[in-house]
Formats: sequence, C-alpha cells, structure tokens
Amino acid sequence: MIFMLTTQRGLFKSAFMAHLTSSVEYGLHCLLWLVGKEDQPLSSRDLAELQGVSPSFLAKIFPKLEKAGIVLSTGGVRGGYVLARPADQISFLDVVDAIEGDKPLFECQEVRGRCALFGGDAPGWATAGTCAIHAVMLQAEKAMREALAAQTLASVGARFGSKAPADFFSSFDSWAQGRARDRTARSGRSAKTTPP
Amino acid sequence: MIFMLTTQRGLFKSAFMAHLTSSVEYGLHCLLWLVGKEDQPLSSRDLAELQGVSPSFLAKIFPKLEKAGIVLSTGGVRGGYVLARPADQISFLDVVDAIEGDKPLFECQEVRGRCALFGGDAPGWATAGTCAIHAVMLQAEKAMREALAAQTLASVGARFGSKAPADFFSSFDSWAQGRARDRTARSGRSAKTTPP
Repeated sequence: MIFMLTTQRGLFKSAFMAHLTSSVEYGLHCLLWLVGKEDQPLSSRDLAELQGVSPSFLAKIFPKLEKAGIVLSTGGVRGGYVLARPADQISFLDVVDAIEGDKPLFECQEVRGRCALFGGDAPGWATAGTCAIHAVMLQAEKAMREALAAQTLASVGARFGSKAPADFFSSFDSWAQGRARDRTARSGRSAKTTPP
Repeated sequence: MIFMLTTQRGLFKSAFMAHLTSSVEYGLHCLLWLVGKEDQPLSSRDLAELQGVSPSFLAKIFPKLEKAGIVLSTGGVRGGYVLARPADQISFLDVVDAIEGDKPLFECQEVRGRCALFGGDAPGWATAGTCAIHAVMLQAEKAMREALAAQTLASVGARFGSKAPADFFSSFDSWAQGRARDRTARSGRSAKTTPP
C-alpha cells in the first residue's frame, strides 16, 4: 500500500502509514510555536506558511486540538490560536490522543476462540480474560504511551529553543506581528471574517 | 481509509491498519502452537485449519519467520515447521521484526528545516542532531520495543497453556498426528510434493 501526503514542499511517499502520523508531527510543531506566546495568537494559515505545509492540512488538525482543550481560538480579525493551558500541562500523549483519537497499537481478533478443536463452540477457559498475546501488546502500548506522557510542550520546547540564537526569536516575533497587521489590513478591505 | 482482511471467518473491517498487524497476531498464535513440539512439525496449512484462517495468509508469513531464523522447515512428506531455537530465546520483538521488517512508529519529515524565516536556507543550528519531536517519538518506540523484547514465546506460551485442561493437549496431539498421517497418505496417492 502506498500513502501520499501533499505539502507545499511536494509529495511524500511512504510504503505505510506510521502509527504516529504526519498530522501528529505537524500538530506538535505548530504547538511548539505557541509556547510562551499567549499574547501573540497565530492562525492556522500563519502556522502553515511558517512551516511550509498545506493550510488545509493544518485546518483539519486545529479543531481537534481545540476540542481537546489544548488550544483556544481567540476571536476578532487579529485572532488566532493560543495554548489553552500552561505548556508544562500539555503532554505529547495529550496531543497524540487529540489528533489520532482512539487508535490502538494492536487489534485483537480473538483468534484463540476459533481453534478447530473446539468445533465452533469455544469453552469458557479458552476465551476468559484477555488473550495472552493481546496482553503483551497492551503492555507495549502502555510503555509507549507512558513515554509520550512523560514529555510536555514545555520540556521539548525548551530543548528546541535552547539551540536557536536570540535573534531568531526576535525575527519570529517581527514576522508574527507582521502577520497580525496583515490580517487587520485585510479585514479593513473586506467585511468577511475568516476562521483562524 | 478502510483496510480489509479476509479470513475463513469472514471479512474484518478496520478504519486503519494497526501498527502491530494481523500478520503479527496470526504469526504469534501459530508459533505458540509450535512451543514444545520439536518432534511434531506442523505445516502452515495445518496451522491455518487449526485456527480458522486463510492458508494463503499464513503461507506469506512463514517464509519471513524462516528467513529470520525463528522456524525451520523440516523436509519430507510429513514435514512442516518447528521452532528453530528454544522458545525462551524467541521474543515477541523478534517475531514482530521478522514479520513487519523496518517499520518505524513515526517518520520524521524534518519540518524544522522548512521554517519560512530561513528563506529556504536553514542554518546548521536548526537542523543539527535529531529533531526534538522525533527524539520523543524514538523514546516511545524504544519503550514499546523493550516491552515486546521482554516477552518470549516460552513465557507467554506458559500463560496460554496454564488455562487449558490436560485433555485439550492430548486432543491437540491426536489432531496433529492425524494431520501428519493424512499428509503421508496423500503423498502415497501422488508423487507431487508441496511446501510445508
């Protein structure tokens, strides 16, 4: 199976869909830009341009983050998204669950009950409790989820930020303020309001 | 996206392909039947019938397990598969890797280098080392893999077996011996040999 993802940079091809998808990847990158920027909302369109990714791709992600209480949409023509709670209270697991929903690592098909020796009528001992194979997969999923829960936007944002020179952040602030001015100017030319 | 998997029990529908797939699930169930049965090889056709699953589905899994040194194909008309090494030296991770191959939990698309502020020429500090988001995903994958590596066919087989009454194992042995006799009888009627 071949899956394709189109971004402004072109076409990515993969032989499979990774469990932690591009939606999660882009969502996390966007959220890291919002850390410490409670007074400087960014629209999903701004974030798409900033990162070279399709605006329609991000436009599908942000409503999920908003529904999960991870971002807030601030109204008005200069509106955009801000983090809905402190960055050290938003884990990677919160973001994965918000974007991916209920997506287990493994789907047990209860193979054990189908054994031909049971003649279509599996006894209670054969199907009681969780299948031993499923139990191992659940342990593996739990370990994965605990690793994701142990990291927050704050901890990873700090690592991200520690590499950048100070003038990078001032360039970013100037860029973000310019985008906010552009949105205000556009709204002056048109009464139509657009979602963040 | 909808993926479908056909088995003898019908059609399973899933809104996604789980990271640990049905191939892994069936592979593990088959291997558990081979634990402690070094003198009683089973063909992939036998194992398909035993578990109510398509023979062609299992026929694609066993060559991978053989290539990875997990099973051995024993020759001859009564041939089949046996474990290639002791069950306590075959981990769940060995089986997953044998069947799924190189399938990461997350595929980093190096979003960080695309930032519009770099004007198409990302500086070294921005792309040096592993992306901080990717690093978290690698930790999560490592935790998942360690959980899978900690369980062997022997440990899980013992849990599986502890639930079954003694007469279940004698029924299974009779069934397996009957299958071996059938293979011998079929070979007497035809000079044609079939792979296990």
